[in-house]
Amino acid sequence: MSSLPEALHTVGWVIAEGVDVPAASGEVVRVLDLLGVAANAFLASVLARERRFDLVAFLVLGVAAGLGGGMIRDTLLQQGPPVALTDPAYLSVALGTAVVFYLIRVEARWWRGGIRIIDAVALGTWGAVGAQKAVLAGLHPLPAILLGTITAVGGGMVRDLLLQRTPIVFGGNTLYATSATAAAAVVVLADALAPEGYESVTVLLAAVIGGGLCLISYRRGWRLPEAREWRLRLRGRRVE
Amino acid sequence: MSSLPEALHTVGWVIAEGVDVPAASGEVVRVLDLLGVAANAFLASVLARERRFDLVAFLVLGVAAGLGGGMIRDTLLQQGPPVALTDPAYLSVALGTAVVFYLIRVEARWWRGGIRIIDAVALGTWGAVGAQKAVLAGLHPLPAILLGTITAVGGGMVRDLLLQRTPIVFGGNTLYATSATAAAAVVVLADALAPEGYESVTVLLAAVIGGGLCLISYRRGWRLPEAREWRLRLRGRRVE
Amino acid sequence: MSSLPEALHTVGWVIAEGVDVPAASGEVVRVLDLLGVAANAFLASVLARERRFDLVAFLVLGVAAGLGGGMIRDTLLQQGPPVALTDPAYLSVALGTAVVFYLIRVEARWWRGGIRIIDAVALGTWGAVGAQKAVLAGLHPLPAILLGTITAVGGGMVRDLLLQRTPIVFGGNTLYATSATAAAAVVVLADALAPEGYESVTVLLAAVIGGGLCLISYRRGWRLPEAREWRLRLRGRRVE
Repeated sequence: MSSLPEALHTVGWVIAEGVDVPAASGEVVRVLDLLGVAANAFLASVLARERRFDLVAFLVLGVAAGLGGGMIRDTLLQQGPPVALTDPAYLSVALGTAVVFYLIRVEARWWRGGIRIIDAVALGTWGAVGAQKAVLAGLHPLPAILLGTITAVGGGMVRDLLLQRTPIVFGGNTLYATSATAAAAVVVLADALAPEGYESVTVLLAAVIGGGLCLISYRRGWRLPEAREWRLRLRGRRVE
Repeated sequence: MSSLPEALHTVGWVIAEGVDVPAASGEVVRVLDLLGVAANAFLASVLARERRFDLVAFLVLGVAAGLGGGMIRDTLLQQGPPVALTDPAYLSVALGTAVVFYLIRVEARWWRGGIRIIDAVALGTWGAVGAQKAVLAGLHPLPAILLGTITAVGGGMVRDLLLQRTPIVFGGNTLYATSATAAAAVVVLADALAPEGYESVTVLLAAVIGGGLCLISYRRGWRLPEAREWRLRLRGRRVE
Repeated sequence: MSSLPEALHTVGWVIAEGVDVPAASGEVVRVLDLLGVAANAFLASVLARERRFDLVAFLVLGVAAGLGGGMIRDTLLQQGPPVALTDPAYLSVALGTAVVFYLIRVEARWWRGGIRIIDAVALGTWGAVGAQKAVLAGLHPLPAILLGTITAVGGGMVRDLLLQRTPIVFGGNTLYATSATAAAAVVVLADALAPEGYESVTVLLAAVIGGGLCLISYRRGWRLPEAREWRLRLRGRRVE
């Protein structure tokens, strides 16, 4: 539970020191973004190890889980090749994480707890970054929120498709996709209010809110309800 | 069985009234297109309810089924972000339909029969619209027909992948993909013959033909045959 | 085992005759590329026949397996519609092969052996062509190698997703993806050394190396090891 206070502390610190807030927020967002790539590549490596896959599978799943959401986002926005391909840092982090956790098996409990926190913050960050990019590309609020959500949960969906698992966003879950949607919605709302040039501050704030919601819903076991059983009987005839 | 006569009636009406036929056809095509989004989001919600999924799953499947085909089409054509993201009507219809049928369970038989008809007309519309867009983007006839077919069946394939079902286009089916291909082929053929500016009339005609073929093949149980058992024995040695 | 010597012979021949080497290499690469489309569409048809699918499924799987990798590559590079849609030769070969092997069942052993060789050479060719395109689009070496690998194995992954099989690149395999990565890496390395205008010669060389590695690893049963069992015990507490 240390990442939220830390992130807030960083923001407070740069304001106190008179540092360029938007630039510093941009840096923090980039670090959170890359931490998210590493956390998701690690989580994919746990699944690859369970199935006794070889190195290629670790790499494929690491890239799919860590970079898949952003690649889908950039492919849909059509403003040039995905940032995952043009900025070598992304691919290096995804592949490097996959190689490290192919070689090393981690079992300590505090480690997985830490990864869960990083994953939650990354979920919020990805939702916020995706929505921000969509807004800057001129999309309406609703599609921008969708694109933020896709950015955040897309990598996990591709990973689950490759592993032939039911995608993690389908039920039985705490507010996973919902947290990403919340972060994306905060960005879309805040963009209308924040002064120009403060986009990265908005993203950071939204990431913290989304990540916090994800962690709280996990700890408290909050879930969305299943489909309601209200039945609309039109002329009363039942089908099957 | 009322949508075909209705659509034809609309065309007849605008001709009789001396209204701008291409513009009116364009409007009819747009309405059929959005009706198709709603019909496919509804059909996805039936599958989501069977599996007792939560609201997020209803939304994900509604968007995938209703907008997936068009998003694949626009991503491949690379003429800017998909229309599903730039025209908020598409996303609103898909999400709105998913929310409504998350809250309400419909059991009446005539309702599902009506949805089947709308789905068939939408299949033809999507095949025709996709082929039209491809032709206007300068693609050759064969790729244009492929793209029309992908537009029509792509959403259902993505939905089935997410649900880990055998895609509906693979066998055991009436002429589903075939009807979309027929609509796309009519557009490609008609474009060579129709006067300029009448693209939307062509699309409407092709949608009616494709949708009609889909409905007739369903009622009569028409299917494509399985792979033939003609064996080419080269030197007569069998493999395994 | 005749395609490698043949390809080398062709290169030798054009050099001996004083023919324009880059142009001739480009032609050879195009032929290998299209042979790969046919080989993959054939291999997909074998799977479709096993499942007693109809013609539509043969066509869908043939297109997915034969053209999927290149379509993903071109979609990510975002330099216009995929070559599989703009050059009708690709779609014609994929669909034509699917139709032929829907009608005809081939059982001879030498035939499948020949297809395996073509498939290996195609794997190398696709890896090399994909990396070359990525380099020309200005990507860094690492993303270029990734994109070459995706080009080579992407079609098979889409095919396996549609068939709900574990993707062929995940373990239990000889050096399949690894051979494609090797071909892509050769291109990236050679591009730094080769004189300008000799890109297609580089691709041909890389394709032969990648294809050769694929065949040799198949014959000798070379595999990558499973994930190591080195455990990092941090404070010694085990999870689960």
